[in-house]
Amino acid sequence: MSAPAGGTRRRGRPPRTESAGTRDRILTAAREEFSERGYEKTSVRGIAKAAGVDPALVHHYFGTKEQVFEAAIEVAFAPVLGASATVADGPPDGAGERLTRFFFGLWENPATRTPLLAIVRSAFDNETAAAVFRRLVAAQLLRRVAAQLEQPDAELRTELAAAQLVGCAVLRYVIKAEPLASADPEQLVARLAPVVQGHLTGP
Amino acid sequence: MSAPAGGTRRRGRPPRTESAGTRDRILTAAREEFSERGYEKTSVRGIAKAAGVDPALVHHYFGTKEQVFEAAIEVAFAPVLGASATVADGPPDGAGERLTRFFFGLWENPATRTPLLAIVRSAFDNETAAAVFRRLVAAQLLRRVAAQLEQPDAELRTELAAAQLVGCAVLRYVIKAEPLASADPEQLVARLAPVVQGHLTGP
Repeated sequence: MSAPAGGTRRRGRPPRTESAGTRDRILTAAREEFSERGYEKTSVRGIAKAAGVDPALVHHYFGTKEQVFEAAIEVAFAPVLGASATVADGPPDGAGERLTRFFFGLWENPATRTPLLAIVRSAFDNETAAAVFRRLVAAQLLRRVAAQLEQPDAELRTELAAAQLVGCAVLRYVIKAEPLASADPEQLVARLAPVVQGHLTGP
Repeated sequence: MSAPAGGTRRRGRPPRTESAGTRDRILTAAREEFSERGYEKTSVRGIAKAAGVDPALVHHYFGTKEQVFEAAIEVAFAPVLGASATVADGPPDGAGERLTRFFFGLWENPATRTPLLAIVRSAFDNETAAAVFRRLVAAQLLRRVAAQLEQPDAELRTELAAAQLVGCAVLRYVIKAEPLASADPEQLVARLAPVVQGHLTGP
């Protein structure tokens, strides 16, 4: 996805030395726009404006709006996918606590909460965004956790465990239902880790 | 919210005998529009078009878009709130299964799934809709269940139980993550009822 090495320089294309910085700035702006507005209401024009660049430059680096979305989410999720291996590793009877702690660590950190909200909001209002969610979160993250389990129904177990955490995120961070929205994160980990563990390895 | 009894008949106002049918038709159209598009992208004009009436008539019966939304959701949720009393009644050790079965009963029935999707989608893309969700679902439905519990942290317990079910609905009906999306509802009730019960009355 970097700028092509040769060819005729078109109008609006940046000097190559600026490319990395500009590309990152567009991705950051894209994450913020998708997070605030959802997939449908975000436009390439709006992303370009927030990044302070010409819309043609956004198309040049990423292509369509769907491709900008996928790139923004993929970059944001790279550390998550790396860390998911750490969660999946280790003794199986600690997987519930590791997954729960990891999950709240992401959501309680404003830097990762923004792209997570972008995915969640967008997945709700658009089938394209839902497909990206399925591909990145369901297929990659959850399948890695499931691969560590010996149970024959490991994928369904992992999804039901994820459902507990996803529902908690929806009610706490999106809907802001009380008392859940103000509960201490450590209290939530203490309550939810055994539930997640039960889904993963229980009878 | 019925048509005023007297006063000058304005252009576009229907004969009074048509009022109930027209009002219901607008509400049905509103539920479908909010469900398909979410709160933000739904317009009074679009609702009017779907119902085959003039937009002025929608304003006449309901007022603002927020008020149309609240009326559409409230009518859809009236049977839910009635039934929630039934869920909350009965022996506490069966509350988990009653709540879980009731929840999947709503989501598996296309007639109730539509307004539920409308609430969920809309609550995600708009703070006004999230407030309606908090008021109707969190404050009314969950508080009724919590009121039946003796535990001092009954409201947090009820929300964590709801989180398990809400997350399952998100992954199954909105994101359509497999294998959860195709799982047999009875299998899901069998797995989730003990989890919900544990949240409500467990240690």
